[in-house]
Amino acid sequence: MGVMDHAATPHQLTRLTRAGETTRDSDLLVTEAPVEFRLAGVPLAVLMRTPGHDAELGLGFAITEGIVLNPDEVAEVVPAGDPDDGDRWSLVLSDGVAVDPEQFRRNLYTTSSCGVCGKASIDAVRVAALRPPPGPRVTVDTLFGLVDTMMASQQSFASTGGIHGAALFTAKGELIVLREDIGRHNAVDKVVGHASRLRWPIGEQILLISGRVSFEMVQKAAVAGIPVIAAVSAASSLAVELAEELGLTVIGFLRDDSCNVYTDPGRVL
Amino acid sequence: MGVMDHAATPHQLTRLTRAGETTRDSDLLVTEAPVEFRLAGVPLAVLMRTPGHDAELGLGFAITEGIVLNPDEVAEVVPAGDPDDGDRWSLVLSDGVAVDPEQFRRNLYTTSSCGVCGKASIDAVRVAALRPPPGPRVTVDTLFGLVDTMMASQQSFASTGGIHGAALFTAKGELIVLREDIGRHNAVDKVVGHASRLRWPIGEQILLISGRVSFEMVQKAAVAGIPVIAAVSAASSLAVELAEELGLTVIGFLRDDSCNVYTDPGRVL
Repeated sequence: MGVMDHAATPHQLTRLTRAGETTRDSDLLVTEAPVEFRLAGVPLAVLMRTPGHDAELGLGFAITEGIVLNPDEVAEVVPAGDPDDGDRWSLVLSDGVAVDPEQFRRNLYTTSSCGVCGKASIDAVRVAALRPPPGPRVTVDTLFGLVDTMMASQQSFASTGGIHGAALFTAKGELIVLREDIGRHNAVDKVVGHASRLRWPIGEQILLISGRVSFEMVQKAAVAGIPVIAAVSAASSLAVELAEELGLTVIGFLRDDSCNVYTDPGRVL
Repeated sequence: MGVMDHAATPHQLTRLTRAGETTRDSDLLVTEAPVEFRLAGVPLAVLMRTPGHDAELGLGFAITEGIVLNPDEVAEVVPAGDPDDGDRWSLVLSDGVAVDPEQFRRNLYTTSSCGVCGKASIDAVRVAALRPPPGPRVTVDTLFGLVDTMMASQQSFASTGGIHGAALFTAKGELIVLREDIGRHNAVDKVVGHASRLRWPIGEQILLISGRVSFEMVQKAAVAGIPVIAAVSAASSLAVELAEELGLTVIGFLRDDSCNVYTDPGRVL
């Protein structure tokens, strides 16, 4: 079962056809459940997420929300509370690292990756964003191959049809990590949490997301130092504006035989 | 131009085909921009939204987040700051109504409709949810007709391909209001803000959303007293769990010739 154990929840439903026929059936729902993260003992955030890779989610969230500036500041992310629970995690700071709880609560409130975000967001991202590297240089063949690779690897999407995917690829199109979650931002945070332990900044790689590119997606990529964001769906005006300002490449509607390169097309060969 | 004035932003892009051909082209991006709401002079929230129907968004947000318990508590939502700006609005409380800013800040933090939400969310919704009415009773024909009606009315989706829609229908399938926004929760809040002025609680009507049904969608419908939520996409485990507990009907994958009725199928005839 693996991933499906936590990512999908069986449910009895009524299937109804347009002709009015009903059948009872069992289906898999994408699992949505709250998880709590604490940082140095202080409550950091409770997220609605799809269980799985929670330690990566906690680390990625702390990085992309600017709570920590470098993954090395977090020694480890360990289960807290009842070990059988799995819904409480603690971010343990590395020796000599201190974070002011009031400071990070404030950060969180003003830059949180959702509807409730601060007007100061663009300014905050400008400050926190890493200078993007000139690469990667991606060939057209590689670019169009990314979606096929992600689709083939999205186990939970296949079973539930209701989960977002995010994946990180090398410039040559090799899959580094793919994560799924009911929240688009969580899927990206899991990818960042994983990849940040491999190298930092993440650098000349490509972030592919199954949904659309909104402001928060560019924010998260920028803070993690990922210069290329590709998406199966559309990009928003503010996402493109931010990417243009920071020098990131944003690609949308990447499907079938064409795509839109909204910003910095120089990274596509 | 109408809606397109604010909902879509033109952008010059590079269109790239799999064969490697590039063309410069102009496209419309869905507009994403911050809006600030104040309540009785105190900052309430800054949301990333698609401009348009902002007064409805402010009212709907205040209702579905439990900041006010009844739309009558808000006399009006008026432009604040520079009148040409359009991105600052004030919710003016009705005579004799008082709200404790600390209280609503806390509510907002713990039940915000996004990744950053409180573990106490389910309990909070349980308390705030209105008892759902037994109806509406919806025929199969009506149900399957809703999506066609919404699609035909979604102007901004047609132009940008990247915007969520939410619509409220009578039990007979008559469209009451349709709103679009880059944020799924915002689209629902605009609908609730509009409909709450027509009657309260909103009652025996049907909320149709273009995306998936997550916890927050059921929360918003429950607080507004809407007993049926139908969606073109999937439902999450927690959404279904909450709907089951509150007695709401959740329908997913409503498209073409079949749909899934996850909870309370008695409202579908």
